Amino acid sequence: MVHIDGDRLLNSLRELRSFGATGSGVVRPMFSDIDMESRRWLVAQMQDAGLDAHIDGVGSVHGRSRNPGPALIIGSHSDTQPEGGWLDGAMGVMCGIEVARALNDDPLTRHLAVDVASWADEEGTYTSCLGSRAFVGDFPDADLENAAAHGETVEQALARLGLVDVPRAAMEPGRHVGYLEAHIEQGPHLEATGKRIGVVSSIVGIRAMQITFVGEQNHAGSTPMHMRKDAGVALFDFGVGIRKRLMTLAGPTSVWTIGNGRLLPGGESIIPGEAWCGLQFRDPSDDIMDAFQAAISDLAAEMTAEGPVAVHAELRRDPMRPANMNDDFRAYLGAAAETHVPGEWVDMPSAAIHDANVMSEHMPSAMLFIPSIGGISHDFAEDSTDLDIVTGCQVLATATANILAQ
Amino acid sequence: MVHIDGDRLLNSLRELRSFGATGSGVVRPMFSDIDMESRRWLVAQMQDAGLDAHIDGVGSVHGRSRNPGPALIIGSHSDTQPEGGWLDGAMGVMCGIEVARALNDDPLTRHLAVDVASWADEEGTYTSCLGSRAFVGDFPDADLENAAAHGETVEQALARLGLVDVPRAAMEPGRHVGYLEAHIEQGPHLEATGKRIGVVSSIVGIRAMQITFVGEQNHAGSTPMHMRKDAGVALFDFGVGIRKRLMTLAGPTSVWTIGNGRLLPGGESIIPGEAWCGLQFRDPSDDIMDAFQAAISDLAAEMTAEGPVAVHAELRRDPMRPANMNDDFRAYLGAAAETHVPGEWVDMPSAAIHDANVMSEHMPSAMLFIPSIGGISHDFAEDSTDLDIVTGCQVLATATANILAQ
Repeated sequence: MVHIDGDRLLNSLRELRSFGATGSGVVRPMFSDIDMESRRWLVAQMQDAGLDAHIDGVGSVHGRSRNPGPALIIGSHSDTQPEGGWLDGAMGVMCGIEVARALNDDPLTRHLAVDVASWADEEGTYTSCLGSRAFVGDFPDADLENAAAHGETVEQALARLGLVDVPRAAMEPGRHVGYLEAHIEQGPHLEATGKRIGVVSSIVGIRAMQITFVGEQNHAGSTPMHMRKDAGVALFDFGVGIRKRLMTLAGPTSVWTIGNGRLLPGGESIIPGEAWCGLQFRDPSDDIMDAFQAAISDLAAEMTAEGPVAVHAELRRDPMRPANMNDDFRAYLGAAAETHVPGEWVDMPSAAIHDANVMSEHMPSAMLFIPSIGGISHDFAEDSTDLDIVTGCQVLATATANILAQ
Repeated sequence: MVHIDGDRLLNSLRELRSFGATGSGVVRPMFSDIDMESRRWLVAQMQDAGLDAHIDGVGSVHGRSRNPGPALIIGSHSDTQPEGGWLDGAMGVMCGIEVARALNDDPLTRHLAVDVASWADEEGTYTSCLGSRAFVGDFPDADLENAAAHGETVEQALARLGLVDVPRAAMEPGRHVGYLEAHIEQGPHLEATGKRIGVVSSIVGIRAMQITFVGEQNHAGSTPMHMRKDAGVALFDFGVGIRKRLMTLAGPTSVWTIGNGRLLPGGESIIPGEAWCGLQFRDPSDDIMDAFQAAISDLAAEMTAEGPVAVHAELRRDPMRPANMNDDFRAYLGAAAETHVPGEWVDMPSAAIHDANVMSEHMPSAMLFIPSIGGISHDFAEDSTDLDIVTGCQVLATATANILAQ
């Protein structure tokens, strides 16, 4: 059986953390200087693991095994949220590199082919899952216009970084038999149930809507209450009203979040003439997603009809469809978990989106989770234990060897 | 009777508009380059009107009559909101200069003393009513630390502009017998009732509170709804809940506004861990203001006790107290209005704050209003008719001459 080197894994993971480390968290958004620095470091790490590595034409770091196929791809992402945790994505990338190293260390597995990827911009600083979408051929040129909050488009970022003429890594159907990804759970389920490993059964779909409120800007002192068209008041009404409606439609694992919004122009003495918010929702069922989207559009239409503020709701971008993980790969991961942590693993859905959503539409794909302390993620406080990280990587390595040896 | 020159007034007002003109509005926030340019232009205008003018140590433009007292001060402000209208403040400053010119043009009134002021930062880009507060000796050094949204403090702005060692204009009790201010109504009352002039009876008080919501930042996909501590949900609940409570406490002219706020960190896929909003409220009665403030604090305390998000409410700065206008000055303004627009003027409260709030605590003060088209202010669409502007200035000139001739 292949054995990973836990200290080597943890040390490399801590070194990656140092790129953008901020307190206990990491600030390493896609295409930032520190992000690109970390990608050059990842290339060196992959080369050291025996892979043929480079930064591709959309910023993904791709390490191709020098062995002939069939090959498994193991990947995740090393970019972070604006205020990210140190393990989200990073752990999966470094586990991929450690699995490649461990297979290479063992004469019995040295011939197996593992390609490793750090997919560009999973977090959507510019456009979600840029790297994996480009890899499977699902990144239309129109999306080059998608922009980060600071205004730069994907196209401008690629030009700034000299990546425009660099080839993009792409699927090789004769070579790639499937995709594996290890990740922190980012939720409380494993910790709460005392499990060490989660084998992902399916990944939720995700839709994000932009709700816009158009009233009338005016003076906050001299405009009587009954004559106002306050877009902020409408935003608050919408926020409370939509929660009640979605609760009646929700499935057991439905989630929805208003994560951002604004009152405009934002002066203390000015009645907001406009406002907006983003409402994101996730569910494993497309039917529930459809019902949510209809409820949001209905409430907007009803509020507009009632007045005095016009409310518009539209999708921010194409929906991310729910994804089922491959049954064979799930069985390999479950068997490996049973070997290393017998009785302490569980099948579970993923409530977070991953590059595996994209990959699963094009090749057999599966994921494993390790516990998140306190269920916390997308926050500086995000963490897992060293033991759980090492265990997760060992389960991944065993499953990888077994899939490829088959 | 003194006669103003309507064309001269309108032309000078349009020239002031050109400093920061943006579409039909004006962007001329305090201490910006264009604001300082307009102040140098105002100094020249005042000198041309026969006044001894300079930019003082807090940025106010002060034009002192060369005549001995008793003197009336006529003023307002030429700084604007982030997206301001062209008349808010500017009209009152140019009316002051036109009154000084008109008195100077007439041998019968040439001996009368009118000092003119454009008070710094009435709009509170850095700190509300900076100029008038400094003039009456009510600007503590601690307020030098107050900062604009872009981070610069008053102290830093004064240093940047070389104003630190420039003397501040100040009250001269033996000289100044009172203060007059002309302004657009910024509300719909005059237009709706077909009146041409409003003589202000009192000015509302104003308080601004900062409401802060502290929950727990987490992943918007993998955190189940029942385990969330979503600061944004609490903000929406507060916004709807406080409206219901304040409606039961409101007097006939009470107003309240949530004009700004934020969900933090503001990522689409992140449950807001923190949020804040600003709630400003105004009323002519301190008792109602006290009841509002208590209701806001109570709701915050109740929400904190109920959980899961902690809510804190505190005053953003010292309250601005309601102000009564001087009865004698009101009578002079009313008599002048009756002369020029008989039957078409009205006594009315001001729902907006003005430098007259500050001045009225230190000397007899009064204000007149002219109609705002559509009641719109603090917006590019703000406007009044040429006739109303000229009429307002003529009423102001007549009242000024009569007060000083007494």
